[in-house]
Amino acid sequence: MAGNTFGHLFAVTTFGESHGPAIGCVIDGCPPGIVITAEEFAHDLGRRATGRTRHTSQRHEADEVEILSGVFEGRTTGTPIALLIRNTDARSKDYNRIAEQFRPGHADYTYWKKYGIRDPRGGGRSSARETTMRVAAAVIAKKWLAEKFGVVVRGHLAQIGEIVPHDFDAAHIDWKAVEANPFFWPNESQVEELEDYMDALRKSGDSVGARIDVVADGVPPGWGEPIYGKLDAELASALMSINAVKGVEIGDGFHVVAQNGSVHRDRMTPQGFASNHSGGILGGISSGQAVRCSVAFKPTSSLRLPVQGVDVHGNEVEIVTTGRHDPCVGIRATPICEAMVALVLMDQALRHRAQCGDVVEITPGIPGSIE
Amino acid sequence: MAGNTFGHLFAVTTFGESHGPAIGCVIDGCPPGIVITAEEFAHDLGRRATGRTRHTSQRHEADEVEILSGVFEGRTTGTPIALLIRNTDARSKDYNRIAEQFRPGHADYTYWKKYGIRDPRGGGRSSARETTMRVAAAVIAKKWLAEKFGVVVRGHLAQIGEIVPHDFDAAHIDWKAVEANPFFWPNESQVEELEDYMDALRKSGDSVGARIDVVADGVPPGWGEPIYGKLDAELASALMSINAVKGVEIGDGFHVVAQNGSVHRDRMTPQGFASNHSGGILGGISSGQAVRCSVAFKPTSSLRLPVQGVDVHGNEVEIVTTGRHDPCVGIRATPICEAMVALVLMDQALRHRAQCGDVVEITPGIPGSIE
Amino acid sequence: MAGNTFGHLFAVTTFGESHGPAIGCVIDGCPPGIVITAEEFAHDLGRRATGRTRHTSQRHEADEVEILSGVFEGRTTGTPIALLIRNTDARSKDYNRIAEQFRPGHADYTYWKKYGIRDPRGGGRSSARETTMRVAAAVIAKKWLAEKFGVVVRGHLAQIGEIVPHDFDAAHIDWKAVEANPFFWPNESQVEELEDYMDALRKSGDSVGARIDVVADGVPPGWGEPIYGKLDAELASALMSINAVKGVEIGDGFHVVAQNGSVHRDRMTPQGFASNHSGGILGGISSGQAVRCSVAFKPTSSLRLPVQGVDVHGNEVEIVTTGRHDPCVGIRATPICEAMVALVLMDQALRHRAQCGDVVEITPGIPGSIE
Amino acid sequence: MAGNTFGHLFAVTTFGESHGPAIGCVIDGCPPGIVITAEEFAHDLGRRATGRTRHTSQRHEADEVEILSGVFEGRTTGTPIALLIRNTDARSKDYNRIAEQFRPGHADYTYWKKYGIRDPRGGGRSSARETTMRVAAAVIAKKWLAEKFGVVVRGHLAQIGEIVPHDFDAAHIDWKAVEANPFFWPNESQVEELEDYMDALRKSGDSVGARIDVVADGVPPGWGEPIYGKLDAELASALMSINAVKGVEIGDGFHVVAQNGSVHRDRMTPQGFASNHSGGILGGISSGQAVRCSVAFKPTSSLRLPVQGVDVHGNEVEIVTTGRHDPCVGIRATPICEAMVALVLMDQALRHRAQCGDVVEITPGIPGSIE
Repeated sequence: MAGNTFGHLFAVTTFGESHGPAIGCVIDGCPPGIVITAEEFAHDLGRRATGRTRHTSQRHEADEVEILSGVFEGRTTGTPIALLIRNTDARSKDYNRIAEQFRPGHADYTYWKKYGIRDPRGGGRSSARETTMRVAAAVIAKKWLAEKFGVVVRGHLAQIGEIVPHDFDAAHIDWKAVEANPFFWPNESQVEELEDYMDALRKSGDSVGARIDVVADGVPPGWGEPIYGKLDAELASALMSINAVKGVEIGDGFHVVAQNGSVHRDRMTPQGFASNHSGGILGGISSGQAVRCSVAFKPTSSLRLPVQGVDVHGNEVEIVTTGRHDPCVGIRATPICEAMVALVLMDQALRHRAQCGDVVEITPGIPGSIE
Repeated sequence: MAGNTFGHLFAVTTFGESHGPAIGCVIDGCPPGIVITAEEFAHDLGRRATGRTRHTSQRHEADEVEILSGVFEGRTTGTPIALLIRNTDARSKDYNRIAEQFRPGHADYTYWKKYGIRDPRGGGRSSARETTMRVAAAVIAKKWLAEKFGVVVRGHLAQIGEIVPHDFDAAHIDWKAVEANPFFWPNESQVEELEDYMDALRKSGDSVGARIDVVADGVPPGWGEPIYGKLDAELASALMSINAVKGVEIGDGFHVVAQNGSVHRDRMTPQGFASNHSGGILGGISSGQAVRCSVAFKPTSSLRLPVQGVDVHGNEVEIVTTGRHDPCVGIRATPICEAMVALVLMDQALRHRAQCGDVVEITPGIPGSIE
Repeated sequence: MAGNTFGHLFAVTTFGESHGPAIGCVIDGCPPGIVITAEEFAHDLGRRATGRTRHTSQRHEADEVEILSGVFEGRTTGTPIALLIRNTDARSKDYNRIAEQFRPGHADYTYWKKYGIRDPRGGGRSSARETTMRVAAAVIAKKWLAEKFGVVVRGHLAQIGEIVPHDFDAAHIDWKAVEANPFFWPNESQVEELEDYMDALRKSGDSVGARIDVVADGVPPGWGEPIYGKLDAELASALMSINAVKGVEIGDGFHVVAQNGSVHRDRMTPQGFASNHSGGILGGISSGQAVRCSVAFKPTSSLRLPVQGVDVHGNEVEIVTTGRHDPCVGIRATPICEAMVALVLMDQALRHRAQCGDVVEITPGIPGSIE
Repeated sequence: MAGNTFGHLFAVTTFGESHGPAIGCVIDGCPPGIVITAEEFAHDLGRRATGRTRHTSQRHEADEVEILSGVFEGRTTGTPIALLIRNTDARSKDYNRIAEQFRPGHADYTYWKKYGIRDPRGGGRSSARETTMRVAAAVIAKKWLAEKFGVVVRGHLAQIGEIVPHDFDAAHIDWKAVEANPFFWPNESQVEELEDYMDALRKSGDSVGARIDVVADGVPPGWGEPIYGKLDAELASALMSINAVKGVEIGDGFHVVAQNGSVHRDRMTPQGFASNHSGGILGGISSGQAVRCSVAFKPTSSLRLPVQGVDVHGNEVEIVTTGRHDPCVGIRATPICEAMVALVLMDQALRHRAQCGDVVEITPGIPGSIE
């Protein structure tokens, strides 16, 4: 139940502050025999990395992963896998001024009220730097899910400010296009528009929110633990635990509020489901369709636009954030969202196997079962 | 990690099927000394009960709670509290026909694929009947939170189909009005409109979704466990675990996608926060403001409108649901949403107390702390 | 982590006080499809029941198990299994006098200091009555372990006071003899001696301790979770959690203190292990040999021999326990010890399956693996 | 539930293999504000270190702890504390020969059967090197327990082979003597005898077991979670999880088997308990007396005396262990036992505070409570 551990059977414990000596994680419960090398982490860490485009923070991290344990001659051994990344570009002096101020929209005040002490360097533990390790841990999960079940977890930016993708069809996403631009945008023809939008935004000193969609294809039916460990409940928790997330939807999400049941209920045919309003989850258990979710990222509160605030002594002060920050944190959050979905699926896959075995046998002679 | 237990320190384990002999729960970790009687469960169970209005299912349950353990001479003893409700109005024959069919939009197919066997009577374990015990368990949580901290958790219907409350101000909700009508609607002048809407809906044989807002007032700053046990992450999980929920928002929710950071960041003043876009949570920890969340309920898929589907043998069949079902399950879900929020807060209150004690002391001499 | 739940994946939560309305349990995570009826609990509950012989407490409980959930048409469905036993022979007036006294050697004082309140009726939650539900839950575990793996868990009394079994060979235990006498004693020729011993003990008003051995045959190699979930560590916890237990041994136990390594290390041959000093566990993982453990039960402190003690006001009082109590609680503890061993093995079997699958494949080409 | 995490609220996750790049741990849930420096780990790590005397393994580890996170300006912040120790004296070539052999009495065979792969270098994860991190984590626990409650956890060697301490009185242990000799022996006059014994043992090529006693003074009444999280149950698990442990006793331990209840039950007087047969725990909850436990360590199986065994191909082979090994692993296990007791107490202290608060209030007017 420790707050810094994610997952029950594929359990990822992360540690580290934004400007401390290092960040890292320990992955416990990993199946043995998975081939993995330190190099394999580079791809997704690169996709997530700050500094990828001029539209994201200019902090440059090498993000070189050292495998400290749990891998022998290139294969996981079933013992805990510790991953370590040294913080090499932490400029703590950037943050000295804010040590006695509460930045609006940040966790400064709440950490201080919770613990009576906080590490102000770069946001300390509350920095999105922590999500690096989620992405790293998910590299192993993604690999196992793909090799064993053919599961593929992919995400894309679905809205930034008021801009939405043109000619978008959720059933036929151009994943190559998504990977070909720094916004993870599903329509390449809009990339220039997005760049202009971001340039104007940066010039204004303000920030904006974003929506990210994640799709997991190939998830077999049967994953998810009713009642409180439902697949959708755990996805909601996993995605809401990402910094700056304020909303999570499964399938049609909030559109269901004004929907009719005759529309929403996905009809089954002998050939399979005829639609996917449910987002691939029924009763908290995967149905075999694509698992679809959508996430809302708030605009960052770290702005060079000054704002009145208070300091730790209760005095009113003017607060200006001068560090390196993204005007839209959602832009590089796609790999993080994918990571959390992959971690949930990995954990649920193991939990399902524990209770029901590798192969579920249909009980004969029981109503509700094939005879 | 068991799928039927909610909470880590205030741990509620529920059991029971819709048409089995009984439903119940075990509450472990409850603080000792709380005054509680079997009668105190009646209020919230009544608010949730089926049959409260002609707009909800006509199944009539007495829902009389028997306290089996954990209470001595009217006070909790710190040992597990078992609550039991016998199922008295379970008409299983209503469901015989569906034993070999997969109702669209239900968990029939997924339970069967997961377990290889399912209890088809009334949806078995996947029925919303299970939520009765969430409401019961939360009665104790609500009481403790109110007595010890002054926390009050209240919800209301915020949208049904396309209908939204008139003259609504989230900062000044008329909670008396909410409780005065069977829709938990915050504006009494619209009740007749809602009744007409529901009558027409029932006549059509179709169903519709709903949105519910929950507000927790009085939550002290400091509750919530970063990183994966964030208060908002656990609220998301708790609310998404309710049957039929497809989306969860904290604070401004999906509105943040098109918001600017200069708008979103809640300014602090010596007198407190100047706004509450965050929904009372920063960095996963409560800020001392009202905790606000919003939930989307899908339209029920149990319709008397026939639909083509498949049976357990893979044959195409026509499916008509004839049991007693609500045309809008969201109508009576308000107490359930409140319950889940209360359970999350209760658990987080105990977790915070475990790590930081009853009173958090500010560490002197550390930047970020008062000297 | 709740104190009243045992197991992680096969999670048993018990509830109920000795003289409350009922005791019960909820088993979560049970594999689906196991055939089980209410009648199947009778055998082991009968073996454990008070009143079986004149040497155990004269409290008579019917101990009829009602299955409230999780079983459909005689098979487990994968949803939580709730079992309920009504307390029918609870004579609370027997205990009225002790409500304000702290019985020496009991939990009266510690519960009161922990919770500030206690249920004094029959020891409340601290009564060994709670162990009934452990035995009940283990009936399902024993059945699954036996059917799926051929695992058989059996125990016997190994010492009572100074009396030890004659002609005893741990490798060839006469299990029929064990079941044929009310002491679970492995040598029937000593039963008369034991009865005389117990008669004299009861006459004296005193009590005595006992040692119980449990053997699990058929455990496959590979069960156990290093480092902190070692099979032996979990057995130690499970057995020590039984009322009155003060010591646990695995394999040679405390005899290893004066043993040489050349004796202790169990030699392997192409035909298997040549001895079993380890008790079937190496590095916290089962070796495929019989898992052997031994448990020490203290003598009950509930004696009619008066003793000076204190009451809740701090005054010195004379304490005499007049209720129905066993002069040797170890006598009927054999089924309880078996139950805890079975519950540990069940949970570990599921955990092993989660991480490593139903069939473990040897990684080729790695030193330490077959090529 | 991950196998490499110890504790629920003060949760210690360890990682690392004996001859991998590093070992380490992450401590989650630590109370904020504790003063701690990297230097403070040296004392207990030194007490545990190999190479302390000529009677223990000649492997020399610097064991320098690096604090990677969770500490800011010398105080814990409430975020996860990661500790890292690089392995500097790992001579893997010593172990090359055993990569394809199963050393008798070791975990080689069981890891291989569990995971299908194992890291043979120095025993990999099953090496006692892992216990270094238990000792490190417990340094923080010991400090908090001492400062907040005055709890002191100390252990000593109580038997080695057939040798027991002379003139030993468990109620008056000479702790200065214990720390003054490399055996943690409570009677300095026997140190020469022990050295002669060990010299003869090493010369013989054989090994021997040991018994260690641990005493925790100052534990307040009320710690421990009935039923399955009993203080004694968790101590049993914690101690049994240490490499080579085969038995655990609380209080009088196995002596209770032949004890009478009139002797065992510790009488209470207005001045406190008159004896401590229970080992300071009643009903799984601390009584306020000293918590006493005793642990049996088996003789190491790593001997230069050859033994017939099998290799991974099933062939019979002669096995000789030539690495650096202790002839009595129990000698330097005292700090490890202390560490596990401290970790259990720390976790239970937080759990107690969660449920019952910093100060337990007696419920007035209830039998069993002061009026």
